[in-house]
Amino acid sequence: MAKPIYILNGPNLNLLGTREPQLYGSTTLADVEKMCAARGKVHGLKIDLRQTNYEGQMVEWIHEAITKADGIIINAAALTHTSLATLDALKNFKGPIVELHITNPHQRESFRHFSYITYAATAMMSGFGPEGYPLAVDGMAMLLKKRKAG
Amino acid sequence: MAKPIYILNGPNLNLLGTREPQLYGSTTLADVEKMCAARGKVHGLKIDLRQTNYEGQMVEWIHEAITKADGIIINAAALTHTSLATLDALKNFKGPIVELHITNPHQRESFRHFSYITYAATAMMSGFGPEGYPLAVDGMAMLLKKRKAG
Amino acid sequence: MAKPIYILNGPNLNLLGTREPQLYGSTTLADVEKMCAARGKVHGLKIDLRQTNYEGQMVEWIHEAITKADGIIINAAALTHTSLATLDALKNFKGPIVELHITNPHQRESFRHFSYITYAATAMMSGFGPEGYPLAVDGMAMLLKKRKAG
Amino acid sequence: MAKPIYILNGPNLNLLGTREPQLYGSTTLADVEKMCAARGKVHGLKIDLRQTNYEGQMVEWIHEAITKADGIIINAAALTHTSLATLDALKNFKGPIVELHITNPHQRESFRHFSYITYAATAMMSGFGPEGYPLAVDGMAMLLKKRKAG
Amino acid sequence: MAKPIYILNGPNLNLLGTREPQLYGSTTLADVEKMCAARGKVHGLKIDLRQTNYEGQMVEWIHEAITKADGIIINAAALTHTSLATLDALKNFKGPIVELHITNPHQRESFRHFSYITYAATAMMSGFGPEGYPLAVDGMAMLLKKRKAG
Amino acid sequence: MAKPIYILNGPNLNLLGTREPQLYGSTTLADVEKMCAARGKVHGLKIDLRQTNYEGQMVEWIHEAITKADGIIINAAALTHTSLATLDALKNFKGPIVELHITNPHQRESFRHFSYITYAATAMMSGFGPEGYPLAVDGMAMLLKKRKAG
Amino acid sequence: MAKPIYILNGPNLNLLGTREPQLYGSTTLADVEKMCAARGKVHGLKIDLRQTNYEGQMVEWIHEAITKADGIIINAAALTHTSLATLDALKNFKGPIVELHITNPHQRESFRHFSYITYAATAMMSGFGPEGYPLAVDGMAMLLKKRKAG
Amino acid sequence: MAKPIYILNGPNLNLLGTREPQLYGSTTLADVEKMCAARGKVHGLKIDLRQTNYEGQMVEWIHEAITKADGIIINAAALTHTSLATLDALKNFKGPIVELHITNPHQRESFRHFSYITYAATAMMSGFGPEGYPLAVDGMAMLLKKRKAG
Amino acid sequence: MAKPIYILNGPNLNLLGTREPQLYGSTTLADVEKMCAARGKVHGLKIDLRQTNYEGQMVEWIHEAITKADGIIINAAALTHTSLATLDALKNFKGPIVELHITNPHQRESFRHFSYITYAATAMMSGFGPEGYPLAVDGMAMLLKKRKAG
Amino acid sequence: MAKPIYILNGPNLNLLGTREPQLYGSTTLADVEKMCAARGKVHGLKIDLRQTNYEGQMVEWIHEAITKADGIIINAAALTHTSLATLDALKNFKGPIVELHITNPHQRESFRHFSYITYAATAMMSGFGPEGYPLAVDGMAMLLKKRKAG
Amino acid sequence: MAKPIYILNGPNLNLLGTREPQLYGSTTLADVEKMCAARGKVHGLKIDLRQTNYEGQMVEWIHEAITKADGIIINAAALTHTSLATLDALKNFKGPIVELHITNPHQRESFRHFSYITYAATAMMSGFGPEGYPLAVDGMAMLLKKRKAG
Amino acid sequence: MAKPIYILNGPNLNLLGTREPQLYGSTTLADVEKMCAARGKVHGLKIDLRQTNYEGQMVEWIHEAITKADGIIINAAALTHTSLATLDALKNFKGPIVELHITNPHQRESFRHFSYITYAATAMMSGFGPEGYPLAVDGMAMLLKKRKAG
Repeated sequence: MAKPIYILNGPNLNLLGTREPQLYGSTTLADVEKMCAARGKVHGLKIDLRQTNYEGQMVEWIHEAITKADGIIINAAALTHTSLATLDALKNFKGPIVELHITNPHQRESFRHFSYITYAATAMMSGFGPEGYPLAVDGMAMLLKKRKAG
Repeated sequence: MAKPIYILNGPNLNLLGTREPQLYGSTTLADVEKMCAARGKVHGLKIDLRQTNYEGQMVEWIHEAITKADGIIINAAALTHTSLATLDALKNFKGPIVELHITNPHQRESFRHFSYITYAATAMMSGFGPEGYPLAVDGMAMLLKKRKAG
Repeated sequence: MAKPIYILNGPNLNLLGTREPQLYGSTTLADVEKMCAARGKVHGLKIDLRQTNYEGQMVEWIHEAITKADGIIINAAALTHTSLATLDALKNFKGPIVELHITNPHQRESFRHFSYITYAATAMMSGFGPEGYPLAVDGMAMLLKKRKAG
Repeated sequence: MAKPIYILNGPNLNLLGTREPQLYGSTTLADVEKMCAARGKVHGLKIDLRQTNYEGQMVEWIHEAITKADGIIINAAALTHTSLATLDALKNFKGPIVELHITNPHQRESFRHFSYITYAATAMMSGFGPEGYPLAVDGMAMLLKKRKAG
Repeated sequence: MAKPIYILNGPNLNLLGTREPQLYGSTTLADVEKMCAARGKVHGLKIDLRQTNYEGQMVEWIHEAITKADGIIINAAALTHTSLATLDALKNFKGPIVELHITNPHQRESFRHFSYITYAATAMMSGFGPEGYPLAVDGMAMLLKKRKAG
Repeated sequence: MAKPIYILNGPNLNLLGTREPQLYGSTTLADVEKMCAARGKVHGLKIDLRQTNYEGQMVEWIHEAITKADGIIINAAALTHTSLATLDALKNFKGPIVELHITNPHQRESFRHFSYITYAATAMMSGFGPEGYPLAVDGMAMLLKKRKAG
Repeated sequence: MAKPIYILNGPNLNLLGTREPQLYGSTTLADVEKMCAARGKVHGLKIDLRQTNYEGQMVEWIHEAITKADGIIINAAALTHTSLATLDALKNFKGPIVELHITNPHQRESFRHFSYITYAATAMMSGFGPEGYPLAVDGMAMLLKKRKAG
Repeated sequence: MAKPIYILNGPNLNLLGTREPQLYGSTTLADVEKMCAARGKVHGLKIDLRQTNYEGQMVEWIHEAITKADGIIINAAALTHTSLATLDALKNFKGPIVELHITNPHQRESFRHFSYITYAATAMMSGFGPEGYPLAVDGMAMLLKKRKAG
Repeated sequence: MAKPIYILNGPNLNLLGTREPQLYGSTTLADVEKMCAARGKVHGLKIDLRQTNYEGQMVEWIHEAITKADGIIINAAALTHTSLATLDALKNFKGPIVELHITNPHQRESFRHFSYITYAATAMMSGFGPEGYPLAVDGMAMLLKKRKAG
Repeated sequence: MAKPIYILNGPNLNLLGTREPQLYGSTTLADVEKMCAARGKVHGLKIDLRQTNYEGQMVEWIHEAITKADGIIINAAALTHTSLATLDALKNFKGPIVELHITNPHQRESFRHFSYITYAATAMMSGFGPEGYPLAVDGMAMLLKKRKAG
Repeated sequence: MAKPIYILNGPNLNLLGTREPQLYGSTTLADVEKMCAARGKVHGLKIDLRQTNYEGQMVEWIHEAITKADGIIINAAALTHTSLATLDALKNFKGPIVELHITNPHQRESFRHFSYITYAATAMMSGFGPEGYPLAVDGMAMLLKKRKAG
Repeated sequence: MAKPIYILNGPNLNLLGTREPQLYGSTTLADVEKMCAARGKVHGLKIDLRQTNYEGQMVEWIHEAITKADGIIINAAALTHTSLATLDALKNFKGPIVELHITNPHQRESFRHFSYITYAATAMMSGFGPEGYPLAVDGMAMLLKKRKAG
C-alpha cells in the first residue's frame, strides 16, 4: 500500500497568508493543506503537510520520510539558502523530491539565489504562488508514475 | 475568444528525443506537442508550439505573442543563459510567462546557473523531464484563471 | 496600554560575563536585564529580555512579538551572520527594530561583516559594550515617540 | 561624393515607442529616422537607419558599411552586452563609430554595465532619450569634420 | 577641567534638512547642534559641532582634537567610504570615537557598505535619524565615564 | 529669466591642452569656454565654466548650483571614479545633469570604469574630445526644452 | 579525577552506517562509540559520545563541556560549514579540541571547503573513515599528556 | 564510403585576409579552403568548408554534421566565447572535434579567455595563423585513424 | 615482505626544532624519525624518513615510492600550496597517502588555505605538532590493515 | 646549418605510458622521441627531446636553447600552471615556441586552466594525445618555413 | 642651473614623530628635511620639502613641479591608495618620480596594497623608516645622473 | 668581526644584461657584483653575490645565511611571486632583509603584483634598474647601523 507524500515547510511559513501578503498572497498553510489533499485524492496520494521553524526538526522529518514516505515536496524557505544539514538529510531519501518556492527567489536579494536543496531535488517549481503546492502534487504524481513505469 | 498559448523552444530542442537521451529522455518535440495539445484541451486552451535555433527568430515570435497570445511557456535552452535580447523581448509581454527546463540547470555546469529569462518569468519549472511541458500547461491554465479572478 | 519591548539574544549570550571577557566584559545577561528594566522605567517602557541558542526559538519569539511587543532590540549574536530565517521573521514585525552588537563586528573576522538583520533593522548600535543595551532602550524610546508623533 | 551614415539598431528596437514607455518614451523608430534625416541634412549627411533582431544581420550590415558608409551610429541594444561578434565586425570599420543608448545602462541591472561596443567606439552617448539620435548625428558630423581637418 | 566633545560632519551635511528629506528628515544641522548642546549639558559635556566639505579640513580638525577634545563623534558622510586619510588621522586620537550615520548605509548602494572609520571607532550608531546625534552624546558620556572608572 | 548652465571641471583639467596631448588634444579650457559660450548663445543659454582641483570646492559649487543654475555639465575627471561626496552633492540638484568625458574611460585602466557621477546623471557623453563640451551644451539645451515641454 | 572526553556529532550522523555507505562505510555510530570507549580505556580516558540534529543543542553541549569535559572531539557534519554559533561556543572551551571528518571535505562540493570549526580547533583529522574516531581519541590523549607536561 | 570533414567558421571570418591583417595575415578563406582540400587529399579526406555570421546557422550545420560528416574542425570566432548553443549542438556529434583559432585567444582581451567549444572539443590548436587549418586537417586525419584502430 | 612507509618532508623542515619554535616546538626531524621508527615497530612497519628543499627531488622520491613503498606520509610544507607537480606525482601512487601538517594551515595566512596535496590524499592530519608524525604512522597502519581486509 | 628543435618535458612526464593511462595512453616518452625524430626527418629537422622534474633544470635548458636551438616545443606539465620562471626564461628565446598538452587542461581541474607558458608561446596544441608531439613537429616546421619566407 | 627636488608629503605626515611611533619612529618631518638637505648637498641637489592634508594642494604642487622641479619624491600617505587625481597630476611630470613609504604597506591592511602612485613612479622604496627619505635622495641623484648620461 | 651581506638572485638573472634589455638594461650580474663590492667597501661591508635558477638552492642559501650573514638583499625574480618556500626560509633569518626588483612589478602583468617575499622583508626597493643593487647596499648599511644603535 502506498505511503504518503510529505510536504515539508520551513521557517516562517506558519505565517503564510498574513506575512508580506503582497509577496505571498492571503492563502494560509491550512488552505494549502486542503488544496493538496484534494488534489492528492485525484491521484490516489495521501498528503502529510508539516511546518517547522527548526532546522533540526526538518532534518528529522526527512529521516522519518526515508521509511515512511513515497515522495517529498519541500519548501524549505530560508533554510533553502542556509541549511547544508537539510541537503545532507535529503541525500538519504530515495524517492522523488520536488523543491518548491512560492515566489521566484532569483527575483529577490542575491543571498536567495543559491539553493542547497537543488543539489538533491529531482525537480523544482517557483513563482506559482500558494497554488504551486497542488501543482507540485500533480508533478509528484507524474514522477511516481514514471518511476513505476521506469 | 481566447488566444493560444505559445510554447517557444530554443536552440537544439529540435533534436529532443535523439540528443543526449540519458539527460533528456526519448520523447520528441512532436510527442511534446501532442501531450500539450491534449492537456490544453482539458483547460480549453489552444497550443502553438514552435522551435528555432535563431535568437532573432525567438525575439520576433515573442513580439508576435504580444498581440497574438495569452501566455508564453518558454524553454529557451542555451539562450536562457546567453540572450539578453530574449529577456528584453519578454518584458513587453503582459500575460503570464512560464520558464521551463527539462533538467535542473543548477545541477549542470556553472555557466547554466544564471538565467536571463528568470527576470521576466512569472513562474518557473525544471527537472520534470519532457513531461514538464504538459505540467507547465496546467500551471499556465491556473495562472490565467487567477488573473481573470484577480 | 503599552506592550513591552522584547530584547532578544542569540546563541552563547547566556555565557555573557564569563565568555571571552577581554572582548565582552564581566557584566552578565542578568545584569543587563536589570540595567534595561531601570532604563525602561525612565521611559515608561516594560522590558522582556530572553536568550536562546536555537534559531527556531528566535524565529518563534519574533512571531510572538508581532502581536505582543511594541519594539524589538535584537542581539542575534552568531545568527546575525548566518540566519536568513531570523530576517524573514523580523520582516513581519511592524514596530521599530534595533540591531545591537556588544563589540564592532567589522573589527573581527570577515565572516562577521555581513548581517542579515540589517535588512530589517530600523537602527543599529555596536561597540558600546554591555552598556549598549540600556542605550538601545533609550534609542528605542526615542523611535517609538517619533512614530507616535509621526 | 559622401557616403551615408549608417544608424544600426539592435534587438527589440522595432518596438520603440510601444515598449516600456516609462523607460524609452513614445517616439517610434520611424520618428527617429525622420529626426535624423532632418538633422543630417543640416550637416550635408545622408542617413541610412536600419533595425534587426539578428546578431548575424547586424554583423553583415557592419561588413557592408566598411565600403558603403562614412560613419556608424550604433544602438546595439541587448547585443551591446552579449555580442562579441558585433565588436569583431566593428573593428574592421575605419570611420568614426558612435555608441548610443537611449537610457543610461549603468543605472539598470548589472548585466547591462559591460559593453563590447565600447572597445571599438570612437565616442559614446547615453540617457538623452530618443532625442539622443539626432544629437549623435551632430556628434558624428563633428567627428567627420575633425578627421578631414586632421 | 573637561575638554569639549567634537562632533565632526563631512561633505553635504550642511544641506541637512533640505537634502533628500525622505531619507534624512527636515532637521537642520543647527537644530542638531542645539539638541546636542542640551543633551551635553545633562552630562556636563561641552559640544563643538563643525561641518566641512573638505577631506583636508576634516583631517586637520581631528589633529586639533588630539590635544583639544575629550571625544569625537564623527559623521563623515561620503568620506566614511572613501577617505583613508580620515582613518589615519583618527588613529592618533586617544579618546573614545563614535561613528555616526543618520541612515543605515547597509540598506543603500553597495559602495556605502565599506567604512574606513570603523577601523578606528570605539562604537557605532546608525539609522536613528538626526535624533541619533543626541543619542550619540549619551553614548559618548557613558564611554567617558567607563574610561575614568577604568 | 533663465539661470546659467554650470560647466564644472575636476582635477588636472586646468592643464587641458598641455597635458598628455596625444590623449586630450591641444585645445585649452579657455578655448572650451569660448566654444561653449558661442554654442550656448545659439540656444539662449548662459555658460559658467569653472575648474577646481579640490573635491570640497566641487561639492560647494554644486550646492551653489542648486539655486543658481538651470543645468550642470560635469567633467569630474579623476573625481568621477573616487568622489562619493560629489555624487551626494549632485543628488540635491533638480535640473538635468550631463556627465562628460573627453576620452572613453572604458578604454583606459580598469579603475576608470566605475563612475559615481553616473548614479546622478541624466545623460552621459564621452570620447568626442574637447569638442564634446559644445555638443554637451546642445544636449543640455534639448533636455531643458524637453523638461519645459514635459 | 579526570573528566570525560566529549565526542560531539552533528546533523545526520545518526544515520551513519546506512547513509551513503559508498562515502561513509557501514559502521554505525554505536560501533564508533564502542571503538572509542575501548581506545579510551587504553589511555585512561572516559568517552561521552552524543549526536544531535539541532545547532542549539550542539551549542549547549559545548557550554556543558566547559565545566564537565577535559577535551572535545567534534564532527560537526554540515554545521562545520554553516554554524558560526558552534564556533562561538567552542571559543569558550579551554581544553584541546579535535575537529574530525570521516571523509575529506576538500574533495567534495566547494561549499564544504570552508570550516568555522577550524578557527577554534587545536588539531584536525579527516579521511580516515569511521576508524578516524578512535585515532582521534589517541590524538586527544597525546594532546592532554602534552598539556600536563607543558 | 567516408563522409567529409566539415570546417565550420563563425562570424567575421568571411573577412579573413582583409580584416586586421596584422593579426590574421592576408590569406583569405578561399585560400584556406584550397590548402585544406589539398591536404585532405593526402589523407583521403573530403573537405566541406563553410562560413556564417549567424549562430543559428552554425547550430544547424552541426546538426547536419551528425549524419553527414566524419569530423568537425570549428573556428567559431566570437561564438567561441559567447555561444552556449553551439556547445549544446556539438555535444550531439559523435566524431572527433578540433577547435581551431588563428591567433592565441589567451594573449588578447580577457573576454576571449573562456571557451564554450572547449567543453566538447577532442583537441585544440591556436596561434598557427591560417596555416593552422591544414595542420588541423592533419590532426583530424590522425584522430580518425586512431579511432578506427581504437 | 612488507615495503617501508615513506615519510616525505618538504622545504625548510630540516630546520625543525630551531625554526619559529613558538609555532613548531623544539623537536627536530631526527627526533621525529626516532618516534616514527618506534611507533612503526609496534605495527610491524619500516619507516624511511627523508627531507628535501627541491620540488624536483620530492617528485622523484614519490616516483620511487610507486614500486618501493607501501604508503606515503607527506608533509610537503610550502610545496603543499604551490606544487602541482607534487600532486601529479602522488596521483601515480596506489597505496594510502596521509597528508600531514604540524600546525593548522587554515589558522595562518590565506595563501596557506589551498592544498594541492589534498586532491590525492587518502586522509589528512594537522595541528598535532611534531607528535602528529607518530600519530600519522598509527593512521597509516590502520589504513593498510583496512585495505588488506578490503 | 640548422640547429635542432628542443622538445622539453616537465615533471612526471618520465612516467608517460604508465601514469594514469586512461588519461594519457600507453605510449612512452621514448616512443614519442622516435615518432618525433621520424617526423623531423621528413622536414629536415633534428630533434632533441629532454625531460626534467626540476623547474631550475627546465629554465637552464631554455637558456641553452637561446643559442643552440631553432625552435622549442614545450610540454611543461605541472610547471605550465605554476612556473613563472619558465615563462621568464622563454621570453629570451627568439625562435618559435609551441606549447603542447597531451590532454585538454580546460576539461580538468580549474587550477589547470591558467597557463604561464601561453604568454610566450607562438602557438598551442592540446588534446591530440601523445600523437600531438609529431603533429607539433609538423607545426614547428611550418612556422620555421614561414619565418624564413617572412 | 639645476632646479630643486620636490619632496611632497600627504595627509597626517605633519604628525610624523608623534603619530603611532611604534610604526613610524620619533623622527619628525623637520628632522627629515634636515637629513635630506644634507644628503642633497652631497649630490649638488636642492631640496624643497612640503606637506599637505589636501588632495587639491598635492595636485597643484605637482603642477608647479612640472616647470619648477627636476625630480619628485612623493610619500602620498593615504592618498597613495585613494587619489586618482594625484596620479593624473604626476603623469604630466617628465622628470624621475620616486614613490616612498616609511613602512611596507603590503604588511598592513589590504586597502593599503593598491597604489595609484605606482602607475607613474619611476622607482619605489618602502620600509626603511624615516631614513628612507635621504636614501630616496641618493636614488633620485642616481636617476638624474643616468638620465643625463642617457 | 662582521659577516658578509648575501645578495641572492633568482631564476633568469644570470641572463642580466642580455635578457630583454629594453626592460633591464645591459649591465650584467658581474657588473652588479663589482658595483656592490665597491659600495660595500665604503660602508665596511663584505658582499657575497649568488644566483640560482633552483628554488631549492635559494632556500638552502638562506638557511646558510642564518649563521653566516649579517643581512640579505634578495632579488628573487620569478620566485618572488611563486615561492612560498623562499618566504618560509626567510622567516628564520634574524637580520635585515631588503627585497629588490630591477623594474616595478606593479607596472607589469597582474601575476607579478603579489609578493611572498614582502611578508618577511624589512624594506623594499624597485624600479632603480641594476643601479638599485648598490643603493640597496646603502640601505642595508643604514638598517644595520640603526639596529646596532637600536
